[in-house]
Amino acid sequence: MSRNAVKKVVLAYSGGLDTSVILKWLQQEYGCEVVTFTADVGQGEEVAPARAKAEAAGIKEIYIEDLREEFVRDFVYPMFRANAIYEGEYLLGTSIARPLIAKRLVEIAAETGADAISHGATGKGNDQVRFELGAYGLNPEIKIIAPWREWDLLSREKLMAYAAEHGIAIEQKRDGSKSPYSMDANLLHISYEGYDLEDPWVEPGRDMWRWTVDPQDAPDQPQELALTFSRGDITAIDGKAMTPAEVLAELNRIGGAHGIGRADIVENRYVGMKSRGCYETPGGTIMLKAHRAMESLTLDREAAHLKDELMPRYAELIYNGYWFSPEREMLQAAIDQTQAVVNGVVRLKLYKGNVMVVGRKSDTDSLFDESIATFEEDAGAYDQGDATGFIRLNALRLRVAGRRKG
Amino acid sequence: MSRNAVKKVVLAYSGGLDTSVILKWLQQEYGCEVVTFTADVGQGEEVAPARAKAEAAGIKEIYIEDLREEFVRDFVYPMFRANAIYEGEYLLGTSIARPLIAKRLVEIAAETGADAISHGATGKGNDQVRFELGAYGLNPEIKIIAPWREWDLLSREKLMAYAAEHGIAIEQKRDGSKSPYSMDANLLHISYEGYDLEDPWVEPGRDMWRWTVDPQDAPDQPQELALTFSRGDITAIDGKAMTPAEVLAELNRIGGAHGIGRADIVENRYVGMKSRGCYETPGGTIMLKAHRAMESLTLDREAAHLKDELMPRYAELIYNGYWFSPEREMLQAAIDQTQAVVNGVVRLKLYKGNVMVVGRKSDTDSLFDESIATFEEDAGAYDQGDATGFIRLNALRLRVAGRRKG
Amino acid sequence: MSRNAVKKVVLAYSGGLDTSVILKWLQQEYGCEVVTFTADVGQGEEVAPARAKAEAAGIKEIYIEDLREEFVRDFVYPMFRANAIYEGEYLLGTSIARPLIAKRLVEIAAETGADAISHGATGKGNDQVRFELGAYGLNPEIKIIAPWREWDLLSREKLMAYAAEHGIAIEQKRDGSKSPYSMDANLLHISYEGYDLEDPWVEPGRDMWRWTVDPQDAPDQPQELALTFSRGDITAIDGKAMTPAEVLAELNRIGGAHGIGRADIVENRYVGMKSRGCYETPGGTIMLKAHRAMESLTLDREAAHLKDELMPRYAELIYNGYWFSPEREMLQAAIDQTQAVVNGVVRLKLYKGNVMVVGRKSDTDSLFDESIATFEEDAGAYDQGDATGFIRLNALRLRVAGRRKG
Amino acid sequence: MSRNAVKKVVLAYSGGLDTSVILKWLQQEYGCEVVTFTADVGQGEEVAPARAKAEAAGIKEIYIEDLREEFVRDFVYPMFRANAIYEGEYLLGTSIARPLIAKRLVEIAAETGADAISHGATGKGNDQVRFELGAYGLNPEIKIIAPWREWDLLSREKLMAYAAEHGIAIEQKRDGSKSPYSMDANLLHISYEGYDLEDPWVEPGRDMWRWTVDPQDAPDQPQELALTFSRGDITAIDGKAMTPAEVLAELNRIGGAHGIGRADIVENRYVGMKSRGCYETPGGTIMLKAHRAMESLTLDREAAHLKDELMPRYAELIYNGYWFSPEREMLQAAIDQTQAVVNGVVRLKLYKGNVMVVGRKSDTDSLFDESIATFEEDAGAYDQGDATGFIRLNALRLRVAGRRKG
Repeated sequence: MSRNAVKKVVLAYSGGLDTSVILKWLQQEYGCEVVTFTADVGQGEEVAPARAKAEAAGIKEIYIEDLREEFVRDFVYPMFRANAIYEGEYLLGTSIARPLIAKRLVEIAAETGADAISHGATGKGNDQVRFELGAYGLNPEIKIIAPWREWDLLSREKLMAYAAEHGIAIEQKRDGSKSPYSMDANLLHISYEGYDLEDPWVEPGRDMWRWTVDPQDAPDQPQELALTFSRGDITAIDGKAMTPAEVLAELNRIGGAHGIGRADIVENRYVGMKSRGCYETPGGTIMLKAHRAMESLTLDREAAHLKDELMPRYAELIYNGYWFSPEREMLQAAIDQTQAVVNGVVRLKLYKGNVMVVGRKSDTDSLFDESIATFEEDAGAYDQGDATGFIRLNALRLRVAGRRKG
Repeated sequence: MSRNAVKKVVLAYSGGLDTSVILKWLQQEYGCEVVTFTADVGQGEEVAPARAKAEAAGIKEIYIEDLREEFVRDFVYPMFRANAIYEGEYLLGTSIARPLIAKRLVEIAAETGADAISHGATGKGNDQVRFELGAYGLNPEIKIIAPWREWDLLSREKLMAYAAEHGIAIEQKRDGSKSPYSMDANLLHISYEGYDLEDPWVEPGRDMWRWTVDPQDAPDQPQELALTFSRGDITAIDGKAMTPAEVLAELNRIGGAHGIGRADIVENRYVGMKSRGCYETPGGTIMLKAHRAMESLTLDREAAHLKDELMPRYAELIYNGYWFSPEREMLQAAIDQTQAVVNGVVRLKLYKGNVMVVGRKSDTDSLFDESIATFEEDAGAYDQGDATGFIRLNALRLRVAGRRKG
Repeated sequence: MSRNAVKKVVLAYSGGLDTSVILKWLQQEYGCEVVTFTADVGQGEEVAPARAKAEAAGIKEIYIEDLREEFVRDFVYPMFRANAIYEGEYLLGTSIARPLIAKRLVEIAAETGADAISHGATGKGNDQVRFELGAYGLNPEIKIIAPWREWDLLSREKLMAYAAEHGIAIEQKRDGSKSPYSMDANLLHISYEGYDLEDPWVEPGRDMWRWTVDPQDAPDQPQELALTFSRGDITAIDGKAMTPAEVLAELNRIGGAHGIGRADIVENRYVGMKSRGCYETPGGTIMLKAHRAMESLTLDREAAHLKDELMPRYAELIYNGYWFSPEREMLQAAIDQTQAVVNGVVRLKLYKGNVMVVGRKSDTDSLFDESIATFEEDAGAYDQGDATGFIRLNALRLRVAGRRKG
Repeated sequence: MSRNAVKKVVLAYSGGLDTSVILKWLQQEYGCEVVTFTADVGQGEEVAPARAKAEAAGIKEIYIEDLREEFVRDFVYPMFRANAIYEGEYLLGTSIARPLIAKRLVEIAAETGADAISHGATGKGNDQVRFELGAYGLNPEIKIIAPWREWDLLSREKLMAYAAEHGIAIEQKRDGSKSPYSMDANLLHISYEGYDLEDPWVEPGRDMWRWTVDPQDAPDQPQELALTFSRGDITAIDGKAMTPAEVLAELNRIGGAHGIGRADIVENRYVGMKSRGCYETPGGTIMLKAHRAMESLTLDREAAHLKDELMPRYAELIYNGYWFSPEREMLQAAIDQTQAVVNGVVRLKLYKGNVMVVGRKSDTDSLFDESIATFEEDAGAYDQGDATGFIRLNALRLRVAGRRKG
């Protein structure tokens, strides 16, 4: 793509060092107009200061938006209906926020007449893929500028030098001040990569973690919690109705206080290498456990098993950046189809890193039938003799094969 | 099956109330000779006393066997190579012991010239299916007597009355003395069903649990542990080589002390109803976490993902009793094929119910390459420009579809 | 189930020998009122005569219904959206008609106040399962009488004797007159089992086949056909709009004339044994080929591949009788979600047993882009250099693994 | 990759126009030594002339090899054990030959001390991916030169001009003389792309097809054939033992004479676009049909169904070029594990494009049991009453769900 082919670019802009350098670099190298887009997806930092910074950089069109409700309602909640976990451990906190950003970038490009978008994801990571597949899926003609794949500012030192040279103010308190880790945060999680994590044998330092207390420092008393589900989504905590983003924020607060949701894993990136990441997902960890418990009471066995078989594929799609794809939509249709009956209440106990289910009920949709499951006489609810035929016909093919061997 | 068609039956015999009644009932109702088979699969009770009891009941052929090593080596370990979990929660502790018992029953029948086997599993549960599918798969001509599906002794009271009437001694201390729960135990786990668990909204009492301390009562200091893997199996703890059964016993001991491995779930039985069960699987919980961590470092991404997709099916097969089936063997072949490289050491921290991975390494088989994964300049190990083509071709189909829409 | 517990039963009644005997047997053995239900699902026999026969047997409530449109629209068409094939060969002709019959039996039971239903499927086949799972799924309290599993009239001779004894008229021309095969037919197919097919090494006689000419006797000239698809369903033949049942009837007629759609297979029944069946599915064979061709032009690659992976499971569900189940509905939701774009026209050539696709187009939904696929220069529609990065990143994990080995 | 970094390159060389130009271009542009490698994989052209041409071009190290047996034995046969079909239609004829070529290129590079390999596949197709993934998987350090992605000779005219300019002799009779199609052939198939196929609505001309007669021109008499299977592979035709390559060659000859194995499809390439291809796979089409028939008699139901579910993934892996990958090896282990019992004979009838199975038998491994499958009384081989319990327990979950609704 020729650089002077770009007239106007929408930049995903945090106001931190990296995207401030990118802003300047786009102006210089592409000579094009830049629109900044700063989103609050619950990363826990003020987005308002981005305005002054963008203005200082000469930006005319500045978008600053609170996307927290849309993020949880349209992305996090649908994903949790699938009980999605990547590689047995990762709750996809970073992955699920990227398509929303991609969507707004493309929409803002349309609104402002921009022909390109740009982002600050590096050339080795998954996020570049997620941003760009999302954007291409929504607008096949969009141009995408990924400065980390183009420039030679491939270290923090070079970035700092570029910033100094071009008069870009660097606030030490922003962007994970003093933290040696590469971090990402949104309402679902905070992640850490790099630095001492690059040796998978080394345990990270205690002060790396930011959202959760160390389980050892968590309260000595468990806390009970009741979560109300409606069609697979949590709609109330301890009986108090909340919006999706309120639910997640509150579960983060409570879970974090009890040391819940830490993960330290080696994962496989879509771009082909293994990397080590640490994650804190306090609210999500609680949601997953509770959702499975609610399903255990209300969901049909075969639907549940089919969901379990499809889940790894679904999680992989999200991890790889295919949220806006026919195959993700196809799987979502299957998943959502099952959730109409996932209604009721789950009781949990939180204690020093543990989420324990201690009760689940559903007035309308329970499939648990005490009269059938009981060990005592059941007054005819279940004919034990049926089991004989059930076993014998299921065994028939094995017996015929056994005769062949014998 | 006509009752006088049976000449000799091998009974899975614990010496407890149920199987003692069955022994008598078989003698009376079938008028056949009974061979008793009592196995130590690590249930934590003495098996020796079964001999005296069987002799007292007039049994001539008495088999008492220690199957612990075979159980862990040939059943538990292969299953853990698959990271098997049923319905997201259950580590299949009961399920995996049944095929071994079925195998020995059939083998002993061959050795003793018996034409039938018998077991004490009820007509509503999964175990009858597991015993019988296993037996039929190994000997298609075997006859199977399942007294619980034939008799009318369908409550504890009736059993006790029968025992009293026939002079069967009932030791109150055996078979979970005073416990109101229906329990099963082996080296992998102990399970609880029935009683107050029949209401899934009710939390079981603190004194139900037997193998693990309450996390609240676990030590205030974490314990570190290093597990050595060879071809996917744990072969040493903290550098000390152990047999499979020794590994599992030791992990049970350590895990139990730290309150690890409790589960309280509603599960779907193969015979069609939901039931609530509580499980303690301390060693297995540690093994699963550690095995995933070892694989995360050494296993190829696509092999790992395929394993994850096949796992629910594999777990379902074991849960449903199809260990001795062509489809389980087919999946096992695929799983085992991947484990040659799963070698190395995983470091864990155990603390009040938590199993935390804090390090993993493999001198011979690590696929983690710091020079590629690093955030800093990598001296050419990875060409960031490659990502552009990677993304653009992966996006091509989405873009063509986008043009159709637009 | 106690026989005098049944007050009124709805019988799936063809008027042939088997169900005439059943009617009488129900009256005699159960002493209950019988409602007859005779459906035209396109089996190619008059259903009207069933009325007189039922009346002659003293039946007061007689249902005779033309279900052909409902059958094709609500059962056959949804199934073909999935490209369903059982075990690589069988187009599920019998399987897909059973749930509709079950549904009407249950509905008529509700309308007439009957507490039971009955059918003429044998105790070794799949159809009993399909009828009964369907019925139980729709009305959990329904009673089901399966005479073949209860009585001892287990051969044609005994049935004939019973009929003679009870004055049941046997028309030699009905029910596959003179045919030695067990047959089933509906608008989708006709099937043959039994007789010389019981030896899978033996080729059936030429005169077994009824719906299709032998390919050797088919016309020497091919016939062209254009099928119009709308959302995955065929809505017109050679430009002429037709209802679903009209489409299938017409394709049967044309396909049969060209010797299309014969299959001779050994299949695995749900009840555990292998059986040999021969099938004629002329219209269905054409539909499947055409539907795949229409999808090949309009469906996204990954959606298509996911459909292919889910298809065997979906086909198995239908074969096994789980049409009315949460898991089938879940898969159907996924499948249907993909079909909105399956619009266009497919051109076929039929010739002596062959269905050949010779063209496919879609004005609105083609994803085929000549400018990208061309072997000649494409004026920038596709950057060949992108392939380098695509390959290199896809190879990265393999290369890292190669270094480990080397 | 810097061009002067390459010292010696092994070129997959046919002696035709494209690879002759590439040879020259490599010498000129890379200034490196070239080793030619010409393989007979059954493409039906003499490979010997390649020697003289290579010598004329100044090549010192010339490899000409007959790989037909290795191709069929180690690639085609394992693939057919899986019943592999890509997108419901394509028998993977081109895909399966590429990894073998890649393997020999890498091996010859090692033998000759070459540091690079090169091939003539274009930048839009799948073959570049298959060659390069295969090569990288076998030697992670190999350099790969793909001239079609580097040069600007992007049309046939430019190639011809380059050839003329550099004195490269162009034989009109080679490389599909006068054919306007892009073709590829090996012992499994011949393929056609481009030219009038670029409009998927247009039927290709009758004279495009080369290996099979038009079904209309095929013999009016069917031909019978008996294929003997051993562990899933065909080892004899009509009782005559043959090597794998002999089997395939003979089936190609017979099938081609009967017009068998034509396919005209739109497929999804791995690089992201749809393309239209025509294929002739006469022997493969017969093999697939026969293999399924042999399995239908000898393979367990659940193993067969699991194979069917895994097959699309397996086929996709081969299509995409992942033959030498952990995930393909994992699936192969599962597939091969099932084939020990796939022994016996299948009888087929070939007639004007049709392959009809007319019989199958296995003296050692048949699971077909007439006494169980029969419609007549079976003297107790199967207890029809068992079906009641089988159905009732399978229905239990549906009934409980029905009660919830009701």
